[in-house]
Amino acid sequence: MMKMIISVIIIHSYKKLIFDSSKFRCTNKKIGAGTNVWQFCVILENAIIGNNCNINAQCFIENDVIIGNNVTIKSGVQIWDGITLRDNVFIGPNVTFTNDFQPRSKQYPEKFLTTIIEENVSIGANSTILGGLCIGKSSMIGAGSLVSKNIPNNTLWYGNPASFKAFICDCGLKLDKNYFCLKCIKQFNLNTKNLLEST
Amino acid sequence: MMKMIISVIIIHSYKKLIFDSSKFRCTNKKIGAGTNVWQFCVILENAIIGNNCNINAQCFIENDVIIGNNVTIKSGVQIWDGITLRDNVFIGPNVTFTNDFQPRSKQYPEKFLTTIIEENVSIGANSTILGGLCIGKSSMIGAGSLVSKNIPNNTLWYGNPASFKAFICDCGLKLDKNYFCLKCIKQFNLNTKNLLEST
Amino acid sequence: MMKMIISVIIIHSYKKLIFDSSKFRCTNKKIGAGTNVWQFCVILENAIIGNNCNINAQCFIENDVIIGNNVTIKSGVQIWDGITLRDNVFIGPNVTFTNDFQPRSKQYPEKFLTTIIEENVSIGANSTILGGLCIGKSSMIGAGSLVSKNIPNNTLWYGNPASFKAFICDCGLKLDKNYFCLKCIKQFNLNTKNLLEST
Repeated sequence: MMKMIISVIIIHSYKKLIFDSSKFRCTNKKIGAGTNVWQFCVILENAIIGNNCNINAQCFIENDVIIGNNVTIKSGVQIWDGITLRDNVFIGPNVTFTNDFQPRSKQYPEKFLTTIIEENVSIGANSTILGGLCIGKSSMIGAGSLVSKNIPNNTLWYGNPASFKAFICDCGLKLDKNYFCLKCIKQFNLNTKNLLEST
Repeated sequence: MMKMIISVIIIHSYKKLIFDSSKFRCTNKKIGAGTNVWQFCVILENAIIGNNCNINAQCFIENDVIIGNNVTIKSGVQIWDGITLRDNVFIGPNVTFTNDFQPRSKQYPEKFLTTIIEENVSIGANSTILGGLCIGKSSMIGAGSLVSKNIPNNTLWYGNPASFKAFICDCGLKLDKNYFCLKCIKQFNLNTKNLLEST
Repeated sequence: MMKMIISVIIIHSYKKLIFDSSKFRCTNKKIGAGTNVWQFCVILENAIIGNNCNINAQCFIENDVIIGNNVTIKSGVQIWDGITLRDNVFIGPNVTFTNDFQPRSKQYPEKFLTTIIEENVSIGANSTILGGLCIGKSSMIGAGSLVSKNIPNNTLWYGNPASFKAFICDCGLKLDKNYFCLKCIKQFNLNTKNLLEST
């Protein structure tokens, strides 16, 4: 007989319901303390997930994945083999990653493409990220974008395909024309490749 | 020991399986009669949901949410804090809402952006709706769009970003050049801001 | 009392957890041998699914659906009434299909639109496919696209809306200007409508 499970969850005290790794006896130790995983997620056993992350409902995380600390992954996101999310990354809902440039059913590349999402990056809702790219530190991708290029640090990109829109501070605000953030009182300089904080 | 749940559901009589609020003893009374919630949904406890809605599988509904009557939400949709869906709204599959203009992981705005989806609006599949907008009565957003502006009543928009395409009737059909719907035999007039039904 | 189910699945031996139709006693016989269905999927009872398919987590498959053999469907995909996927089709994560051109909540067309995805097609991640279209054999749709036209065989399309980019081999590689695939050593010819393999 097939087992029927009614899996609608109406949450009256949802903090008790979600997975809290600090209270969870887990034979591998690859999910850090204070990380919450919400309902209906699937996490394969070799994924490495840091501390204090928030992984919202209905996500899927494959094996060859490294996720740093304080990372937020909203609902409906899959993190495939070959993808790394560094500390403080924000992944919006239904953001979609890829790891194969020419997928065919049941054909597998020798190695999946490697994608690096650097520290403090935010990827807006429902964006699509082609495989094999690096999204630089503190950059922000607007909602609904298709990212098809490497993204330099501290820049805002959006569109399909995403194009460069502005230089931004680590806080997310656009810099003024002198690369200064009025909110953080922080000066940046543009070197040949990337925006760097002045020291 | 970790409890393993095989959660594939093959539905032989799916009407019995889905959540029917009229038969469901629920301590809060915030989900209206005749509303069906399908499998693998998460609904936080303060969300208010009207009568005769259909919330398809794998959706997520946060707390500060008001959903009217006769609303359809297809699979893979999240309704975040600050979002209101009025009566007879249709939200296509994988439509993605947002409520924070510059998200950073673990940084929260004082107040999330407020989004209003007015009566009888339809939002096409996999569209992305920026936070803080109002989508006017009986408007229609084509599939795969990014909505970045307020949308007037009775208009069709699509694209990334979505742009104005046509005036439409409440039924969804394009109006002729005199703002008349041949199917409904209904005359509209264009006032300074919005299309209004003639009285 | 409401039953609470903690549905986070940390998979230590995931091959044992997923649904394997060859070992599953199922009263209807509409899911072929060797087909795996991952966690948190919903499949309605009249869907017909072939052999050796891989249906990843958090998918939804409606009733009036035919899926061939060796088909891959990644996470977050819904296959609605009226959609056919032929053998060897690859559907990327969060790809979104539609079957109603002018959806309104609680209004149903006499018949849903029919969509055919032909043999060996690949549809890239997070693409949106309008209803009523045919995507021709061995074609490939780039990630993040909106498909609004019929797609000829052996062609690559992407963008929003998707436009023609190149002729491709069944393997996925672009053909040279003589319609020859250097990898497969295979010659194609362009007839009036479609690219055909030389015989």
